[in-house]
Amino acid sequence: MTSLSHSGFFRMAPDSPESRVAIVGAAGYTGEELLRLLIHHPRVQITCITSRGNAGTPVGDVFPRLSGADLAFAEPDVANLAAVAEIAFLALPHGLAAEFAVPLLDAGLKVFDISADFRLKDIVDYKTYYNAEHPAPELLARRVYGLPELRREALRTAELVACPGCYPTSIIIPVAPLLKAGVAAVSNIVACSMSGVTGAGRKVETPYLFAECNESVRAYSVTRHRHLPEIEQELAESAGVDSMRINFIPHLLPMNRGILSTITLDAEDDELAVETIAETLRRQYGGEPFVRVLPHGKLADTKNVVFTNVCEISFDFDPRNRKIIVSSAADNLTKGAAGQAVQCMNIACGFDETAGLL
Amino acid sequence: MTSLSHSGFFRMAPDSPESRVAIVGAAGYTGEELLRLLIHHPRVQITCITSRGNAGTPVGDVFPRLSGADLAFAEPDVANLAAVAEIAFLALPHGLAAEFAVPLLDAGLKVFDISADFRLKDIVDYKTYYNAEHPAPELLARRVYGLPELRREALRTAELVACPGCYPTSIIIPVAPLLKAGVAAVSNIVACSMSGVTGAGRKVETPYLFAECNESVRAYSVTRHRHLPEIEQELAESAGVDSMRINFIPHLLPMNRGILSTITLDAEDDELAVETIAETLRRQYGGEPFVRVLPHGKLADTKNVVFTNVCEISFDFDPRNRKIIVSSAADNLTKGAAGQAVQCMNIACGFDETAGLL
Amino acid sequence: MTSLSHSGFFRMAPDSPESRVAIVGAAGYTGEELLRLLIHHPRVQITCITSRGNAGTPVGDVFPRLSGADLAFAEPDVANLAAVAEIAFLALPHGLAAEFAVPLLDAGLKVFDISADFRLKDIVDYKTYYNAEHPAPELLARRVYGLPELRREALRTAELVACPGCYPTSIIIPVAPLLKAGVAAVSNIVACSMSGVTGAGRKVETPYLFAECNESVRAYSVTRHRHLPEIEQELAESAGVDSMRINFIPHLLPMNRGILSTITLDAEDDELAVETIAETLRRQYGGEPFVRVLPHGKLADTKNVVFTNVCEISFDFDPRNRKIIVSSAADNLTKGAAGQAVQCMNIACGFDETAGLL
Amino acid sequence: MTSLSHSGFFRMAPDSPESRVAIVGAAGYTGEELLRLLIHHPRVQITCITSRGNAGTPVGDVFPRLSGADLAFAEPDVANLAAVAEIAFLALPHGLAAEFAVPLLDAGLKVFDISADFRLKDIVDYKTYYNAEHPAPELLARRVYGLPELRREALRTAELVACPGCYPTSIIIPVAPLLKAGVAAVSNIVACSMSGVTGAGRKVETPYLFAECNESVRAYSVTRHRHLPEIEQELAESAGVDSMRINFIPHLLPMNRGILSTITLDAEDDELAVETIAETLRRQYGGEPFVRVLPHGKLADTKNVVFTNVCEISFDFDPRNRKIIVSSAADNLTKGAAGQAVQCMNIACGFDETAGLL
Repeated sequence: MTSLSHSGFFRMAPDSPESRVAIVGAAGYTGEELLRLLIHHPRVQITCITSRGNAGTPVGDVFPRLSGADLAFAEPDVANLAAVAEIAFLALPHGLAAEFAVPLLDAGLKVFDISADFRLKDIVDYKTYYNAEHPAPELLARRVYGLPELRREALRTAELVACPGCYPTSIIIPVAPLLKAGVAAVSNIVACSMSGVTGAGRKVETPYLFAECNESVRAYSVTRHRHLPEIEQELAESAGVDSMRINFIPHLLPMNRGILSTITLDAEDDELAVETIAETLRRQYGGEPFVRVLPHGKLADTKNVVFTNVCEISFDFDPRNRKIIVSSAADNLTKGAAGQAVQCMNIACGFDETAGLL
Repeated sequence: MTSLSHSGFFRMAPDSPESRVAIVGAAGYTGEELLRLLIHHPRVQITCITSRGNAGTPVGDVFPRLSGADLAFAEPDVANLAAVAEIAFLALPHGLAAEFAVPLLDAGLKVFDISADFRLKDIVDYKTYYNAEHPAPELLARRVYGLPELRREALRTAELVACPGCYPTSIIIPVAPLLKAGVAAVSNIVACSMSGVTGAGRKVETPYLFAECNESVRAYSVTRHRHLPEIEQELAESAGVDSMRINFIPHLLPMNRGILSTITLDAEDDELAVETIAETLRRQYGGEPFVRVLPHGKLADTKNVVFTNVCEISFDFDPRNRKIIVSSAADNLTKGAAGQAVQCMNIACGFDETAGLL
Repeated sequence: MTSLSHSGFFRMAPDSPESRVAIVGAAGYTGEELLRLLIHHPRVQITCITSRGNAGTPVGDVFPRLSGADLAFAEPDVANLAAVAEIAFLALPHGLAAEFAVPLLDAGLKVFDISADFRLKDIVDYKTYYNAEHPAPELLARRVYGLPELRREALRTAELVACPGCYPTSIIIPVAPLLKAGVAAVSNIVACSMSGVTGAGRKVETPYLFAECNESVRAYSVTRHRHLPEIEQELAESAGVDSMRINFIPHLLPMNRGILSTITLDAEDDELAVETIAETLRRQYGGEPFVRVLPHGKLADTKNVVFTNVCEISFDFDPRNRKIIVSSAADNLTKGAAGQAVQCMNIACGFDETAGLL
Repeated sequence: MTSLSHSGFFRMAPDSPESRVAIVGAAGYTGEELLRLLIHHPRVQITCITSRGNAGTPVGDVFPRLSGADLAFAEPDVANLAAVAEIAFLALPHGLAAEFAVPLLDAGLKVFDISADFRLKDIVDYKTYYNAEHPAPELLARRVYGLPELRREALRTAELVACPGCYPTSIIIPVAPLLKAGVAAVSNIVACSMSGVTGAGRKVETPYLFAECNESVRAYSVTRHRHLPEIEQELAESAGVDSMRINFIPHLLPMNRGILSTITLDAEDDELAVETIAETLRRQYGGEPFVRVLPHGKLADTKNVVFTNVCEISFDFDPRNRKIIVSSAADNLTKGAAGQAVQCMNIACGFDETAGLL
């Protein structure tokens, strides 16, 4: 919990042995969400937030909601970051994130990277989808993919965590258990996803103006979205296959926050009972604090999860076509980005996994 | 064009030999849209609008936008309707629509039914999906399915037109040509649709309250929506097969008007060129006033079509999975309901097909 | 009506003696609305649309809704404009508009300027509010303020029309008759206005991003908005006083289109009857095609007027404080900008005043 | 903090001496917000939630966000409530609230009433605005008006707290200090307020349907809203006058949460410096955890405060008309209802005032 201003709005817990945290690239929507979560986190103190474009500016000038916090943006500087923090969150563009990750790891910090730089194991995929050589391939062997529900053990000792993209989170969580259990086939998976506009970041471009998004819905990047190889990589691992290929079709929706993914899959069994789907999901997630498997017949809805770290899942089975249909709802900025990164930090640092997230 | 009030807002075209039109069940969103379109239609005059709940009320009290119109709701009465109109639009619940269609047809009116009563050829499907015996099976042989782009010739002499549902319109238009041309396979079609809230009608129920829909997206009726058999029936006819089965998954979105459907289909040809999709769609729709096949790379967006009778289509091909991906955008109240009904009337009555719709 | 493309979507009326119209600066929201209205206008043909940033681009690439139109943006060039048009609409930034108005008037065109350049009679006010010398003071004597309901006679022979701002339109229409009739006092008027985001134009700036406007409302320019002197100028004229000062407080709302202005005024008469307000408004606007005075008890609502050229007015009287309260609702892009400009053109060119606007 | 379900989502803090809380009438939006705040409150345990319409239903069935909570709705029963709780929140319709308040106070509970029953000191006003005799006038002498920033001392020993309405909160907070300091005049105050749709409660009525509120803004109850006498009562007390009369004009906006009030007041001093307004507000609120006086030039915005208990204030001065203009932004469900009620409980029960609210 961070030391805050004279207003008394936020107060430091006295005598707590807090870990010092830096947020690198804190002026976007993910940075704001990290701040929202970490300012009140009981085990950490924010010691540095950086933003090239806002260096010197108090945080409240950029994010009025956070006006009470006694924090100002600084220029990003590796030496300074290493001096003031044990933990760094990177909310930077891909490519740039690796430039910070390398020296910060060398300096002994734990690094939670919310960019795409360490998500893909295959540097050829990285080059294909990001049009650049991988900036730090030597680190890939050390990185852990930060989906706690599937990688909790590896996360306990992780030093470099590649936090998943928002779409991958929303798709892998409902689908992975079905593949792992052999309930669904690896071929012919179609994921139709719908995201609120903060999913595009705080980009000042015409397509994201209010009047261009409101009363509008559109698909985009329908064949080669950058999150595609990440989804396929993780699902293949769950399925126990070397590789697999799905269709992933994102849509932009007129709402601020939230992702809904509806995925259709072929059932392996002609006479699959809907209870089998339910059991498979509950077996995986029954004890999870941040995954909610709804009763059959209830439907996942983003309004039930925004501003929380929960991913909720609904499911059904269409015996006419032998299709499993699952929907997941999550907040793209929380479980889809900052909240999940904090959950990873909690695990990697030995904090209570739900600290700061309830 | 309808005679209107003292305000001079609307004026009747003098001496035009206008057809007299009645709208039965005019107090819902579809009724309002019919009124919006028909009040200014150059070839018709609205002589009667009915609503049980609003009988005696001036139209402007229910729909303030239409305050200038010199019209009031009447009790629905078959004899009166037959006396004052040659054309009737039925914007009634299913079951009730047939009760009016039968005597109005007997009285010689042309009937454009926007309910589901005459959409399905198979009365077993009707019973399965509507939980009732078909109310007038003897009329099914005479009815024409009112999708002008596919049934224009039959519509020219139609007396009973079953106007398509909004979801079917948005799915059949982009998919039918691909099946007809053998470009796409009949199996394994997944239609993921997203509708604005007027698609649910003007139902005064909790799920449709502002604060329950805003900042929310959710799937519903994921395996057995009532529009499913209608879509399958029409696609089967296009494909030249007896029957087929698709997956249709509707979602409710926080916008007033508009439907986007994104459909994935298996290509028949492993090496399908995206140009083949373009040509197939353009061959079917190149001369159509109300279908816009976008250039490859542009994306269908509901904001481009709301308050118009246009359905726009975008398309792509994913060679990795041999999947065709098409998206269509339309206004659920216009091309998805009232506008298409007016287009059918224009054809069946020998008016210019675009009259009142540009 | 404009000649349109092969799709047959729009068709030119053969042999009609149409006036040729140019739209200078057509790539913003006002330009799009002008296009929407003029493409189907029965008395004009669009011969030229200009946009520096989009020269050479087909209109459908910038505004997909207008894809059927056979029009492309051209570089703005006075000689060319004068050669191809009798009528010019200027949808340009202030300052730049005058640069076009001067030579186009010299060349004999009628000019309808939607910028602020000719709204203010007082060049000192212009300098105060626009931080620049007036670009063409010699034209001010010739210009007519384009509020048809108050200036119809002057408009009949106008060559240069200064089309009102959106906020002024929404405030002057309900207030002017009350001042003119002496029902309300000239002092102590407070106008609280609320606008949809298109009112800010198509500015690609952070405050107008979707996620900055959605689920948000904020006041801005609360003491010195640029529309203030224009409102005061016109109300003073209605009141028959040399000058007057009001408070005008605009707010930005999460909707695309629409302005609601709620204005409180001191009644001159302690025992003013609400019927007197009604009669005063109805006397002024009873025959107007585009002003709707609602019955007492009904409330003006932007949803009743968007996509129309109507301004609707509701009113009430608070005897406790002797306050008259009026609300007006209009579409900021139609009655507040492009629609009103077309209405002015209709009058100045001798067309039916409602042509293209119903 | 409340004992929660097997999912481990929420956990009770062991051994903490928590106060037991009941929420009577918990199935509306205010009830949901109370639940959201109290479930994680460190000093209380929710022991009973009631709802006639939902008795027997788990809370997660009505509010899916709260699915983790091990709570179900019960029939409201005074004896049971008195047996299981020391603190009761009443989120009931006016009239009904008093029926519970009387016996619960008799049973020794502290009662925080979010209805209107105890807001007005004057039972004549109650009758005038609520069309009923006051249900429990004998309690009025004991009740404390629950605006902590103005009534903190009285709240410390309060047993019956009348929690303010959302509009009154948003108006009294910025205006009271200006009246108390004599900076603004008591006459001629106009408050123009704008509320998100949850402000209307969870009423299943046509005007609150999504498609009736979205892309819409409208004023309502412009002369006699029920919150008017409450605002006047409290402002008069701040001004030190027996009574005063203002104009209060509420508007309904297309957003879920948030109220913005813009208030114009006459300055007492012709040459009032804007700094004087700033100082007056800061003197009152400088140390307050939940009021944020913005720097001059920044503008209050609901998006900065939704889902928080903060009310933020911006201000300006118009020397032309000697008008002070202040805007306040708050979350109607938090600072405007449930959050403020919890703040009152914290004070009245001796908890940290910000407990559960940061």
